[in-house]
Amino acid sequence: MSSWEENIRKVVPYVPGEQPKRKDVIKLNTNECPYPPAPEVKELAEKMQYEDFRLYPDPEAESLVSALSAYYHVPQDQIYVGVGSDDVLSMAFLTFFNSDLPVVFPDITYSFYDVWADLYHIPYRRLLLDENFRMVKEDYFGHNGGVIFPNPNAPTGLLEDLDTVEDIIRNNPDVVVIVDEAYIDFGGKSALPLIDKYENLLVVQTFSKSRAMAGMRIGYAFGSKKLIGYLKDAKFSFNSYTMNRPSLELGAASVRDDAYFRETCARIVRTRERVKGQLKELGFTFPDSASNFIFARNEKVSGQELFDALKAHGIFVRHWNAPRISDYLRITIGTDEQMDALVGFLKEYLKK
Amino acid sequence: MSSWEENIRKVVPYVPGEQPKRKDVIKLNTNECPYPPAPEVKELAEKMQYEDFRLYPDPEAESLVSALSAYYHVPQDQIYVGVGSDDVLSMAFLTFFNSDLPVVFPDITYSFYDVWADLYHIPYRRLLLDENFRMVKEDYFGHNGGVIFPNPNAPTGLLEDLDTVEDIIRNNPDVVVIVDEAYIDFGGKSALPLIDKYENLLVVQTFSKSRAMAGMRIGYAFGSKKLIGYLKDAKFSFNSYTMNRPSLELGAASVRDDAYFRETCARIVRTRERVKGQLKELGFTFPDSASNFIFARNEKVSGQELFDALKAHGIFVRHWNAPRISDYLRITIGTDEQMDALVGFLKEYLKK
Repeated sequence: MSSWEENIRKVVPYVPGEQPKRKDVIKLNTNECPYPPAPEVKELAEKMQYEDFRLYPDPEAESLVSALSAYYHVPQDQIYVGVGSDDVLSMAFLTFFNSDLPVVFPDITYSFYDVWADLYHIPYRRLLLDENFRMVKEDYFGHNGGVIFPNPNAPTGLLEDLDTVEDIIRNNPDVVVIVDEAYIDFGGKSALPLIDKYENLLVVQTFSKSRAMAGMRIGYAFGSKKLIGYLKDAKFSFNSYTMNRPSLELGAASVRDDAYFRETCARIVRTRERVKGQLKELGFTFPDSASNFIFARNEKVSGQELFDALKAHGIFVRHWNAPRISDYLRITIGTDEQMDALVGFLKEYLKK
Repeated sequence: MSSWEENIRKVVPYVPGEQPKRKDVIKLNTNECPYPPAPEVKELAEKMQYEDFRLYPDPEAESLVSALSAYYHVPQDQIYVGVGSDDVLSMAFLTFFNSDLPVVFPDITYSFYDVWADLYHIPYRRLLLDENFRMVKEDYFGHNGGVIFPNPNAPTGLLEDLDTVEDIIRNNPDVVVIVDEAYIDFGGKSALPLIDKYENLLVVQTFSKSRAMAGMRIGYAFGSKKLIGYLKDAKFSFNSYTMNRPSLELGAASVRDDAYFRETCARIVRTRERVKGQLKELGFTFPDSASNFIFARNEKVSGQELFDALKAHGIFVRHWNAPRISDYLRITIGTDEQMDALVGFLKEYLKK
C-alpha cells in the first residue's frame, strides 16, 4: 500500500440489484413500479425549458416541498427532500447517529443500514427478528444510539401496526428514531401523524416505488421543525443543490396527480394478492407482504436454484446468500402479464 | 436542549449565492453560463422516454462516463461522476481526508472547503495567499493531511501555471492532492495529464459553468484507477444511484457537442477581456481573471455600497463580508448585453 493510501476511508460498498441493459427481461428484482409515472409528468417533461438548465436549481426545492406540503398537510419547514430515500437516510445517519452507543436495527432488513454505519464509523447492533420475521419491540426500547427500521420491512414485506411503531418511539425519547416507509403506500398505515407527538421521529418515504420515479431519484422525510432543521444544516454543508431541475418539476407534478397514484397502488395490491394465492398453490410460503414484493421460499427447491432457473429464463428476481434467508426470493410485483409469465414458468419448472 | 439532541451533528451550513425567483434581474452572482446548453441537449430533452423514469438509473452511469472517457481520452475506470462537483468534492473529503494532520487550502478560496471539513470533523489549516492573492507554493509542501485548491482559484479568478501545480503535487506524495478545476475551461491548462504520473492526484471538474448545466447537477473527477476505486467504494456506500436519468442522458449529449462547447467558452472569454478594459477605466482593480468572473474593487467606493446599489438596480453580483476581500465584488461574465448594462450603471453611479 502506498503511503497516501494510509488515511483513506475503506469500506465494503452496498451492492444494488442488477440493472440489466437488455430490454427483453422481466425485471422483478429492484422493486420498481411496473407502470409509468403520472400523465402530468409526461406532459411537463415534454415542455421542460432546456434553456433554464444553465441556472442552478432552487436550493430550497420549494416547488417539490410545497407540493408535498399540500398533499400531506405538513408545513414546509417539516419536510426534507433528497436524491432518493438513500440520500435522505444517509444524511440522517450522518446527522443523527453520533452516540457511542450502538444504533439498532433488525438483523434482516434493508442492507444499506450497516453500510452507512460502517461508512460513518457508527457503532451498530442487529436485533434478531423472531422466527416469523417479526420485530421483538422490547428489544428496541432504550439504551441505544438511535433506532431505524423499515415499515413494512424489507425484504420480508411485513408490516408492523402503528401501535408497535409508537411503542418503540415512546420508549426511545433520548435518541432519534427513523421509520423508513419506502413501501408504506401498498397497504400500510404511515407513522406520519406521530411527528406532531414526538419531535425525535423522522418518517422517510420515496418516489421510487409507489410513484414510479426510481429513475428520477427523489426521497423525502417528515419530522419536527427542529429535527428537519438539523438535517437541512447537514445537507447544506454537503451540497447546496442536490435536486436537479427535472427532479423538482417532475416530482411536484407526480404529487399533484392523486387519482393516478391511488389507482396505481391499488392495481399493484390487487396483483400481489392474486399472486399470493398462486404461489401458495405452487408450494411457496412467505410472510404476508404489505409491500410491492413477495419474499417467498419453495418447500422443495432452494433459493439459489430457483434464482438461477428464473434468470436463465429471462426473469430477474432478488436473492441473498445470507443467514436465515438464503432460501428466499424477493419477487417484485410487476404487471399482471409479467406475473403470469413468472407463475407459468414456476409451474412448469416445479413439475420436473 | 432535549436529550435526543445531544448526539446530533451540529454544523454551520454553507450559504449559496442568492437564487432570486424574479426573472427580471441580471443574474451575475453564481457564475452560471449566460448561454443555453448544447443544442443536442435540447433535442434529447424533447424526446426523453418518460416511461423509463420508473426504472432505476444505471448505477455505473456508463452513458455519461463513456462520453467523458471518449472526450478526454481517459479510461472509464479513472473517471468518477457525481451530483455537481460539490457532491464529488464532498465525497472526496469524506474518503481521502482522514489524517490527524490538517488538510490545507488557501485562506481566500471556495468557501465550501472549511464547511466540509467541519461536517466530517476533519482538522484543517488555511494558508495565506500573498498580497497579490497568489499561492505561496512552498507552504503546501508536506506535513499535512491532504491538499485542496481551485485552479483558477475562486473568488479571485487567478490561474496558477501547471509547473506550480505539479510542484505542489510532487511535494505531497503521502496524501491526496485535489485540484478543483471548476473554471479551467476559460483559459487554463488542466492538470489532467498529471494523473498518469501521480496516483494520489484527483482532478475535479463540473458541468455547471462552461457546459451551462448548473441546473442538472453534474460533476466529475479524474484520477488513478486506485484513487477512483476508493472514491467509488465510498459513493456506493452512500447512495448507489446518485445521478438521475435526465442527468446521465443530457450530460452525455452535452459532452458530444465539442464545437458548441468551445464556441461558448470563447465567447465568454472575449466578453471578459472586453469588460476588464471597461472596469479599469472606471477605476476598478482586480486580479487578472482566467475564469468566467472578475473579482474587482473600486478605488473610491466600498464593496458593500456597490453591491447594494447594483442590487437595488436589479443587478445581482456576489459580495463577502470577509477579511481581506470585503471591498471586492465577484462579477460573473454574462452576455454582452448584460455586461453593457452593468458597465453602464457603474459609469453613471460612479459619476455621482
